[in-house]
Amino acid sequence: MKSELALVERIRRSAGRSRQLSLGIGDDCAIYTPVAGEELLFTTDLLIEDVHFQRETHVAADVGYKTLARGLSDIAAMGGAPKFCLVSLALAEWTDERWVDGFYKGLLELARGTKTALAGGDLARAGKVMADVVVCGSAPAGTALRRSGAKPGDGIYVSGALGGSALGLESRKGKAWKKHLRPEPRLKVGAALRARWGATSCMDLSDGLSIDLHRLCVESRVSAELDGDLPVFPGATVAQALHGGEDYELLFTLPAGGKAPGSIAGVPLTRIGRVRRGHAGRIRIEGFELQPLGYDHFRKP
Amino acid sequence: MKSELALVERIRRSAGRSRQLSLGIGDDCAIYTPVAGEELLFTTDLLIEDVHFQRETHVAADVGYKTLARGLSDIAAMGGAPKFCLVSLALAEWTDERWVDGFYKGLLELARGTKTALAGGDLARAGKVMADVVVCGSAPAGTALRRSGAKPGDGIYVSGALGGSALGLESRKGKAWKKHLRPEPRLKVGAALRARWGATSCMDLSDGLSIDLHRLCVESRVSAELDGDLPVFPGATVAQALHGGEDYELLFTLPAGGKAPGSIAGVPLTRIGRVRRGHAGRIRIEGFELQPLGYDHFRKP
Repeated sequence: MKSELALVERIRRSAGRSRQLSLGIGDDCAIYTPVAGEELLFTTDLLIEDVHFQRETHVAADVGYKTLARGLSDIAAMGGAPKFCLVSLALAEWTDERWVDGFYKGLLELARGTKTALAGGDLARAGKVMADVVVCGSAPAGTALRRSGAKPGDGIYVSGALGGSALGLESRKGKAWKKHLRPEPRLKVGAALRARWGATSCMDLSDGLSIDLHRLCVESRVSAELDGDLPVFPGATVAQALHGGEDYELLFTLPAGGKAPGSIAGVPLTRIGRVRRGHAGRIRIEGFELQPLGYDHFRKP
Repeated sequence: MKSELALVERIRRSAGRSRQLSLGIGDDCAIYTPVAGEELLFTTDLLIEDVHFQRETHVAADVGYKTLARGLSDIAAMGGAPKFCLVSLALAEWTDERWVDGFYKGLLELARGTKTALAGGDLARAGKVMADVVVCGSAPAGTALRRSGAKPGDGIYVSGALGGSALGLESRKGKAWKKHLRPEPRLKVGAALRARWGATSCMDLSDGLSIDLHRLCVESRVSAELDGDLPVFPGATVAQALHGGEDYELLFTLPAGGKAPGSIAGVPLTRIGRVRRGHAGRIRIEGFELQPLGYDHFRKP
């Protein structure tokens, strides 16, 4: 590995610029000049070797891609447009220059495709690889979608199909494995739900429908009733669709009376239930209570 | 350790709010509403167990304090006022609830004292503790101090005394150890240098004067000549003052003809040399060339 100065210089050359980002990599801070009438959205996500990925099965470009994809998915969940990101990367002894180049190649490929500038970051050494991304997105002031706006009577919807990532992690092959490695942040879906379809609440499915819907209902102080008719990823089980993490689809609610699109930007949308009054966070499915069994980093098994 | 939901709820209750932060912890993103005429500054810093701190010698509150202090120091270097931060925390098996509470106690103490809201973050499990902080600061548009503005003839200055943190890491006692554990971000100094004293460039001393001044000179395309009369921390060696990291003092330049304050907000300022034309990044001290020997995470010994 060359020196940190040389590495930072190489990253800087390939990072790109954006109009509002008047200063990027290379100073103490990046500088962003907001435009009138925008509100800024911020999210941060950790990706850790042997927790979120394995060096044997995840190539460097996939790790870089997913680092950014997780953050972009949070921006999509608020209906925002991504503006820039900062990436902190701790490198393990086993990583070499080729690995670092691959990481940034995967990350910057997604960054370019979504118009997200790489504005800065930090580099360090550690026992395992750890990447932390911060993504800043933008929405017209007062319009960002939140978890807390679901109202009794609203329909509950999801984008795409559920359980694919969990299936891929198990099978390590086919479209399910690709879904796990390279989830597509639903930026166009989120933006349209915010601007055109009057979504009352939205979040991304990172830990599994059962726990994420529980969280949305807690924030909105409502309960939910699911139909049991879920869009299950081909080959996945209903349990994987209900509790599997890392699908990065959007979970959202639309007003009872309104029209709902069948798809947005080629991504199918499915109505899976409705919002109810009652105990905040409780979910019923076909008459039974659904336990929030999705991924929780700290719950003891 | 209780569940992630309970832990996040406990952090949220003690995080505070700010006027511009319309949504804090608990949703997919935090929302910040900029005011007209401000530019926003962003910095990110990693703090890693066994790289930046040891569990045996650094109590949880010191780790939390330093996580935020490192980011605030970058905001100070641009002359900005801190607005909010996001903290990603990976917890090792050895950490318990008391450790996590201590971490946030130390971090939030500094956050309150500097009016920095805790806007969000991420939590995960890992083999070692790792904390990544993003701090957002604000300055009037077009005024943030950069590394790139030093001009031949400018005086070179530092705040406070140098080498204290390196001495503290060696001796583990007295004021030097306190300087290492709880460096004070020079926010008032940076803000005054920007608003009142016309500083032409500024950065914080995180890796050591020799390498940080080299970086400033490279960005400004100038060389530097030091007098050899450095403000050395009591008990530290000249080598520690030249090459020791983590002092988090400010290194800055002022125009040749202008007046320079002797101190700002009680922090003494010392002129240590002048900016010269010539090979970008070269530093001479008493006729000899100074090698950039400060801390570089990737240089082979």
